[in-house]
Amino acid sequence: MASIDGKPTLLHLNDSQSQTILWLLEELEIPYDIKYFERETSGKNKARAPASLKETHMLGKSPQLITASGRVVIERSAISKYLIDTYDAAGKFKISSADGERNDALHEEELLGFAQSSWYVTVMVAVILHYTKTYSPFIVRPLIGAVSAMLRYGFIDKELDAQLKYLNSQLEGQNFFLSNENPTRVDVVLFFMVQMPHTAKVIDIKTYPNVKAWYERCLSRPAWRRGIEKGNGYVMGG
Amino acid sequence: MASIDGKPTLLHLNDSQSQTILWLLEELEIPYDIKYFERETSGKNKARAPASLKETHMLGKSPQLITASGRVVIERSAISKYLIDTYDAAGKFKISSADGERNDALHEEELLGFAQSSWYVTVMVAVILHYTKTYSPFIVRPLIGAVSAMLRYGFIDKELDAQLKYLNSQLEGQNFFLSNENPTRVDVVLFFMVQMPHTAKVIDIKTYPNVKAWYERCLSRPAWRRGIEKGNGYVMGG
Repeated sequence: MASIDGKPTLLHLNDSQSQTILWLLEELEIPYDIKYFERETSGKNKARAPASLKETHMLGKSPQLITASGRVVIERSAISKYLIDTYDAAGKFKISSADGERNDALHEEELLGFAQSSWYVTVMVAVILHYTKTYSPFIVRPLIGAVSAMLRYGFIDKELDAQLKYLNSQLEGQNFFLSNENPTRVDVVLFFMVQMPHTAKVIDIKTYPNVKAWYERCLSRPAWRRGIEKGNGYVMGG
Repeated sequence: MASIDGKPTLLHLNDSQSQTILWLLEELEIPYDIKYFERETSGKNKARAPASLKETHMLGKSPQLITASGRVVIERSAISKYLIDTYDAAGKFKISSADGERNDALHEEELLGFAQSSWYVTVMVAVILHYTKTYSPFIVRPLIGAVSAMLRYGFIDKELDAQLKYLNSQLEGQNFFLSNENPTRVDVVLFFMVQMPHTAKVIDIKTYPNVKAWYERCLSRPAWRRGIEKGNGYVMGG
């Protein structure tokens, strides 16, 4: 699977968070290859990633990036770090720390930790409860709905609100997380994690004006739109 | 809240992941202060963190580290990076990259991304389903149990197994994640994320021998035991 032409290759799955790596590749304006994968459309693995993604990494997930030297990199936080470190010679997507603590490397670590282990966990629990309610058999639906509501109103909705207020505060007076100029690694990691629950109507970003403006700002990036055109479908694309 | 004596201060909550930061502080053998917080013991916020943790950070979670210069740092991945970068002059807990790709900085990013946004999400969904089943009213328990089993056996158990196999492979031939000598930041971040579901019997690490040996190795560190003695209770301590 090593590159034969000196370009990185994205192993890209439709309707997945891999779309944000396509976005970053387009932002960087570098040559790259895409190998397309499609979610299973039937059988017991319906909607799951195809087994062929296990040929390059035992976890079998997308995105995977095969670097120009043939190394397989997983996880969006690592792939985006690799791409920015390797290809962003002009430093457009690097954080500058010119604003001191507000936008420095330690705060980047805080935001990445928050995004991945606090925000995303809350979101995924809320999304799963939402779909458990939507897709459970008709007869048990009211009951599952009640349990779901109990969990959501007792805990998860308050948590989502507190966390969205924090995200909103981090965008006060600047266009992106950790930068006023261009998206950073934190934007790439967080975008999917906000878009997915927003599209699923598990959160509503309307009441968090900085988050809403940021969300629309990301979607209107020409690089985001080019990424959508080069992908193989993205139902969360709005 | 700025330090008056040049030491970092840990805002520490009982029975929480903050215990792993106490572990790291003890591993580093540096002077530090602890400010103790207790989970609510009654009322509608029973078992939640006390509101007083919001005085230093709007998210109100523990751990928070107040650095010697008075900066508040959140998220274990960021706090552990700060502590190791600042206080590990001998480089005991830094990764060395002597083994090339296996233990280098890019792989550290992959493991941190995996731990936080893949492993922890799967674990938390499994844990919540487990407790939903255990604590739901007696009359609906069989039904909730059935939904929980459906979700677990259809998806989550397979996912937990694949992810534990990956963690097991990462420990092949070495004592810690990214190092054979001493725990690294990845061990500090991951330890709680393995201990909590293991103690809750949501996973069983027995069949993943490297993970089991690593788990016991961490628990037997003198610094882990000193951290437990300095804490204010940790039910997951086994």
